[in-house]
Amino acid sequence: MTDTLPETALPDLVSLRDQVGAALTGFLHAKDRNPPGIEVIHLTSTLRKLLSGGKRLRSVLCLYGWHAAGATGDATAVVRAAASLELFQAFALVHDDVMDNSDIRRGTPSAHRALAAAYSADGGPRDRAQAYGLGAAILLGDLALVWSGELLHTAGLDPDRLAQVLPLVHDMRSEVMYGQLLDLQTTGRLSADIDTPLHVIRYKTAKYTIERPLHIGAALAGAGAPVLDACTAFGIPLGEAFQLRDDLLGVFGDPAETGKAIVDDLREGKATVLMALAVQRASAAQLRTLRSLVGRSDLNDEQAAEVREVLESTGARQAVERMITTRYDAALTALDQAPFPEAVSAGLRRLAQAATTRQM
Amino acid sequence: MTDTLPETALPDLVSLRDQVGAALTGFLHAKDRNPPGIEVIHLTSTLRKLLSGGKRLRSVLCLYGWHAAGATGDATAVVRAAASLELFQAFALVHDDVMDNSDIRRGTPSAHRALAAAYSADGGPRDRAQAYGLGAAILLGDLALVWSGELLHTAGLDPDRLAQVLPLVHDMRSEVMYGQLLDLQTTGRLSADIDTPLHVIRYKTAKYTIERPLHIGAALAGAGAPVLDACTAFGIPLGEAFQLRDDLLGVFGDPAETGKAIVDDLREGKATVLMALAVQRASAAQLRTLRSLVGRSDLNDEQAAEVREVLESTGARQAVERMITTRYDAALTALDQAPFPEAVSAGLRRLAQAATTRQM
Repeated sequence: MTDTLPETALPDLVSLRDQVGAALTGFLHAKDRNPPGIEVIHLTSTLRKLLSGGKRLRSVLCLYGWHAAGATGDATAVVRAAASLELFQAFALVHDDVMDNSDIRRGTPSAHRALAAAYSADGGPRDRAQAYGLGAAILLGDLALVWSGELLHTAGLDPDRLAQVLPLVHDMRSEVMYGQLLDLQTTGRLSADIDTPLHVIRYKTAKYTIERPLHIGAALAGAGAPVLDACTAFGIPLGEAFQLRDDLLGVFGDPAETGKAIVDDLREGKATVLMALAVQRASAAQLRTLRSLVGRSDLNDEQAAEVREVLESTGARQAVERMITTRYDAALTALDQAPFPEAVSAGLRRLAQAATTRQM
Repeated sequence: MTDTLPETALPDLVSLRDQVGAALTGFLHAKDRNPPGIEVIHLTSTLRKLLSGGKRLRSVLCLYGWHAAGATGDATAVVRAAASLELFQAFALVHDDVMDNSDIRRGTPSAHRALAAAYSADGGPRDRAQAYGLGAAILLGDLALVWSGELLHTAGLDPDRLAQVLPLVHDMRSEVMYGQLLDLQTTGRLSADIDTPLHVIRYKTAKYTIERPLHIGAALAGAGAPVLDACTAFGIPLGEAFQLRDDLLGVFGDPAETGKAIVDDLREGKATVLMALAVQRASAAQLRTLRSLVGRSDLNDEQAAEVREVLESTGARQAVERMITTRYDAALTALDQAPFPEAVSAGLRRLAQAATTRQM
């Protein structure tokens, strides 16, 4: 374990998030004034609201990755590059909510609902509001994706470093969509197969949310294979634990804390590891309960409680808790062996704990 | 008018399209094999089908722009950069069809319809087919957008040239979405205002389809202001003429030739220049006809014929024909004054003629 970086050289989480927020604010402010004669303010304000509610996990990890590779000094360009990951995440969330037909995100109306409401409030024909919301949310996601690229390429990075990082960025962008696609292909099909949801988790979360942001930051500091490999050894199990926790919260969580409607995952019939384990362990009667209720778009609270009972009594919930613990431990072990400055490892340790318990 | 480029140095349209097609085929072939354990073949084959039906107008114009700035020699990297515009256009079409809920594109089922059908054929739950089609089409569009960036950045371009071109690419990407947004905001609201639909046309088509591809190609050859300005002077009026023709074809065209359902624009209530001119000139009775029929999602053939009759008898159709002619003439005049090699001007002249009459 190298320790060239003093503890004080690594900014705290709050400061990192504020720096990323300032970069996003500056970028979007310019966009507000950009297109002459076109009203984009509904779109950018919806985007701002979404960005303000986030934990900025990916951009923080990107900056940790930069420090993990031993970088210090002026981080202005790296902060802007990290902020571009938040715009990418905003794109992914907006489109995800359209695809899942979700009403709520981060505790407020999802983008397509907010934009439909803004359209109606603005005197738009009532029978077009839903179509407008859908279309405008697709466009908002598209713009956030495009702007993510623009922010990265205008971040002021050294061109050689940017060239080194681009393949990782391209991989990250495709990977998250592969995960989303597999998710979509399996949703609504109750199955005992846990390999496929683990595959979804790996692409959609472990690589996208943890490993790649660390990689991108590390590569921006010119990291070689040892640092990148350590990012993977830490990031993949932590990312899996993070998503397994998310799956549990999607069914058992408190909507006031998660900012999401609690029955959404069950109504959609998300093919999670949790559900696959329940199917594996269910009695014939329990299996009938799952088959008749999971994926029902009109699932009510009582029926949701019945499904939860099966997830509990089959031991599926506890099994997922154990999987989270195993992966959390693996991530911490990887961190102990990582060639990161100790201040970085300490920060990542706290972050790992927060991410798997969702105390962040 | 400079003429350093011999007529034979400019490849013919068929050859340019084939080169772009080969670049796209090679790129997508690698994507088919890329994600281990994830079935993307439905997506890539849907994308391939869409790409094969196109006229490749944007990539051809990008290559013309390159030659317009006097470039000759090995065009391999420029062809790949031009091909990236086709992936971007595929993205735009796929999302546009989702937003417009269109069934047909380029004479075959639109991506969301094709993907929903593939899902059902694959044994997917019947009641999820539509949601799957929508979600998978959004993801396919997202992937095409991301891959467009990847193809551009791995095209093998000189880094300094790429840096010169990126601001134009970023502008192009935002502009087309601003145009789409304004289109969406005005659809379904019958209006006599022609400035707004002209604004839509400028962003969505004139800049995106003609001016920016020429600019990008020219900048890849290191063009200065005189060449870029000439691209604008030619591209904007031609692009406006092209979209005005498209608007006429959307209402009066032959579906067998346009590859689109003829009543779609009327059912949606697209706020076109054509419609605005009709509203301006309509009698009280004609206005009642337009108000009661335009934007009806259940518009039948007989009702569509009634609307067409109003568009004819008010003279709106003829007025749009005149606007096309004026803009076509302006584009040709700009070409006569452009500092392009004569072979390029001759090619652009043919292309302008084909684009405004849709003989291409």
